Amino acid sequence: MSVSPASSEIRVDIERLKAEILELANIGRHEQDRGIYRMAFTDADMQGKRWLRKQIDSAGLESYMDGAANVSGCLEGSSNLPRILVGSHIDTVPCAGALDGALGVISGLECLRRLREVGYRPHRSLELIAFSDEEGRFGGMFGSQAVCGQITPDKLNTMSDLDGTLLQDEMKRQGLEPLAALDAARDPESIAGYLELHIEQGPVLDRLQKPIGIVDEITGLFTWSVCLRGEANHAGTTPMDLRNDAFMGLADFAHEIPRILEENGSQRSRATIGKAQILPGAANTVPGLVEFSLDVRDTSESILADLSSACRKALQAIARRRKLMFEFEQKSYIPPVACSPLFVEQLTATAQCLGLDCHKMPSGAAHDAQIMGRIVPVGMIFVPSKNGLSHSPAEWTAWSDIEAGANLMLHSLIALSNLE
Amino acid sequence: MSVSPASSEIRVDIERLKAEILELANIGRHEQDRGIYRMAFTDADMQGKRWLRKQIDSAGLESYMDGAANVSGCLEGSSNLPRILVGSHIDTVPCAGALDGALGVISGLECLRRLREVGYRPHRSLELIAFSDEEGRFGGMFGSQAVCGQITPDKLNTMSDLDGTLLQDEMKRQGLEPLAALDAARDPESIAGYLELHIEQGPVLDRLQKPIGIVDEITGLFTWSVCLRGEANHAGTTPMDLRNDAFMGLADFAHEIPRILEENGSQRSRATIGKAQILPGAANTVPGLVEFSLDVRDTSESILADLSSACRKALQAIARRRKLMFEFEQKSYIPPVACSPLFVEQLTATAQCLGLDCHKMPSGAAHDAQIMGRIVPVGMIFVPSKNGLSHSPAEWTAWSDIEAGANLMLHSLIALSNLE
Repeated sequence: MSVSPASSEIRVDIERLKAEILELANIGRHEQDRGIYRMAFTDADMQGKRWLRKQIDSAGLESYMDGAANVSGCLEGSSNLPRILVGSHIDTVPCAGALDGALGVISGLECLRRLREVGYRPHRSLELIAFSDEEGRFGGMFGSQAVCGQITPDKLNTMSDLDGTLLQDEMKRQGLEPLAALDAARDPESIAGYLELHIEQGPVLDRLQKPIGIVDEITGLFTWSVCLRGEANHAGTTPMDLRNDAFMGLADFAHEIPRILEENGSQRSRATIGKAQILPGAANTVPGLVEFSLDVRDTSESILADLSSACRKALQAIARRRKLMFEFEQKSYIPPVACSPLFVEQLTATAQCLGLDCHKMPSGAAHDAQIMGRIVPVGMIFVPSKNGLSHSPAEWTAWSDIEAGANLMLHSLIALSNLE
Repeated sequence: MSVSPASSEIRVDIERLKAEILELANIGRHEQDRGIYRMAFTDADMQGKRWLRKQIDSAGLESYMDGAANVSGCLEGSSNLPRILVGSHIDTVPCAGALDGALGVISGLECLRRLREVGYRPHRSLELIAFSDEEGRFGGMFGSQAVCGQITPDKLNTMSDLDGTLLQDEMKRQGLEPLAALDAARDPESIAGYLELHIEQGPVLDRLQKPIGIVDEITGLFTWSVCLRGEANHAGTTPMDLRNDAFMGLADFAHEIPRILEENGSQRSRATIGKAQILPGAANTVPGLVEFSLDVRDTSESILADLSSACRKALQAIARRRKLMFEFEQKSYIPPVACSPLFVEQLTATAQCLGLDCHKMPSGAAHDAQIMGRIVPVGMIFVPSKNGLSHSPAEWTAWSDIEAGANLMLHSLIALSNLE
């Protein structure tokens, strides 16, 4: 690892970075709620992609859009060694803020542009990439899955959004050939690693008042849809001891969650009941049925397995005690992914060189890095989210923290691009 | 109290009663779900009222419909003493069974008809009454409230169903003059008491295998709409100890309910969380807001007050502990009503004479007797509901239990009509 002395003084142009973040934020912004609506493959998203290509071209980096509509630009290296990718996504959830995804793409662009401006030629090529549909209009991480070769013709035929619009129809409407997404797959041997700068989307850095988080692990998760079935009865005429109250079964389970985490989890475990439907749902009727979601996360696969087993046991015992029928379906399982120890070390060392106070932490949210991490080494930098807010127009990060994160990315790219 | 020896052998005609229950059940029945749809002031309800008047007239009892569309018929007594009312209602909830309300009206009719057939002339007049809108299309207990003088022109102007149809418009559509409902009010001095035979709508008699329940108290209740407001956050990025999870506040409260009942309630206390809305309601988002209903019942006003205070304390403590905002609104308060001790005694003695095994019990559901009980002495007889079911086409009671209940009503009417 060597940072050329000449390059150690290079810094991103924060004013330019700022201007571009604000410019992109105006694409797809609704005046009424000030939220950004740049959902994957909508007209606003495509407008964002065209804007990005223009910025990349203006920076002299030559833009490219692959078959999955991932937009990239490259600062060619002096060697043919596997390249370093840097980026994130520019699609958004509905009513989004300005930074989720966009920050990683625009700061990546600024890093490559700045290096080119100062005439720095990296040893390995550095490629900026903005992945398609990270946020999940059609399921999420579409672009990074395509790069990793995880998209099949079968998937392409069936992927649809919540309104039932097929991905392939939406791609065709935008003048894109859906099957070309299969061509976006890359040889893992051609990629030395992937780096992503992202807002934390949680409260930890903000509470700690640290400008930088260095991600060591991206949590895995399982989500269940759980159904407890009892008997709907009259709230006045049914004595407490003759009830099979499905909602009380759910309440019992929720009450067990802290114990389950204490006994089986780690500091990084999370368990959330985020939605529940209670039927028949009348004030004067004992609930006969509840269906609820359970979202459990940890950075360790074996802890996830222990938590899964403990949740099942607790639900079984409660169902027995309350005379309820109990069913659950695993809706998703995403294994945790560890960041490359080499990258974590390099990011930490670079932060130290730059005098940045940083905090080693897991990512509780999923990112393109989680997909890329299955085939190549990955590293992630977090900057603080004010009050932990994201997926909201209120999402924000201090410009000074953004500048710190972008400079850390810049110097990490220099360091990593020089690795033999 | 005296039962004339000549009358002690009189019994209802169960076959006739059965035939009438089944005939009325065909009015408003939907073929698809076999449920009965005779909601107040619908065409089916009015058809039911016309059918009932015909039966009353055929029995030689001279039918009458008052301004609130209550249908009645009278077996004139030999004195001018205040009369005894007997009845229930023939309107139904949507998708109802055959017995809720209809049983009390048709068995009341059978009692009066039978007495007239055997030439029995009561000392006090016996009046059958079928009250309008007990089930609550327009709020419930409309007919009995009208008889008790509790309907005002203002109420009449605003009462509407869930679809926003005004009661007064629906009455006009049926050729009824809404303001005439005010004329249905009676002088309490003209009524010696009100008796009602009803299905239990709960599982107690069925479990105990007793044919008769004698109601001593009708439970009162309060219902609250409770709101707990926390902060919606990302389920992956928000550590457990940095959450203000509104749903977990609800779960904590539900968990306290058994303790609250044990510490403050009686054997007759009930507490139910029947509906809850969880927002934003996404599997991967910590709930920021829950709104739920709380329905608490007991037969003692002071116990209801204690339960109310205990619930408030528990919610306050939970909100403090979980850093949630807590608000609640009392949506309704119905005070408990005691049945007349004299009536309870008379019903019990009569049941004993008839060799019927009976169980003294509260009514957990509201009935017209609860309204009437505020101005005149009331008594209620319950017959078992198979599996505790009601408000469902599966609602049922053994004919032998119906016969027992109707005969108990018959002889109780004889006894009470002879009171000086």
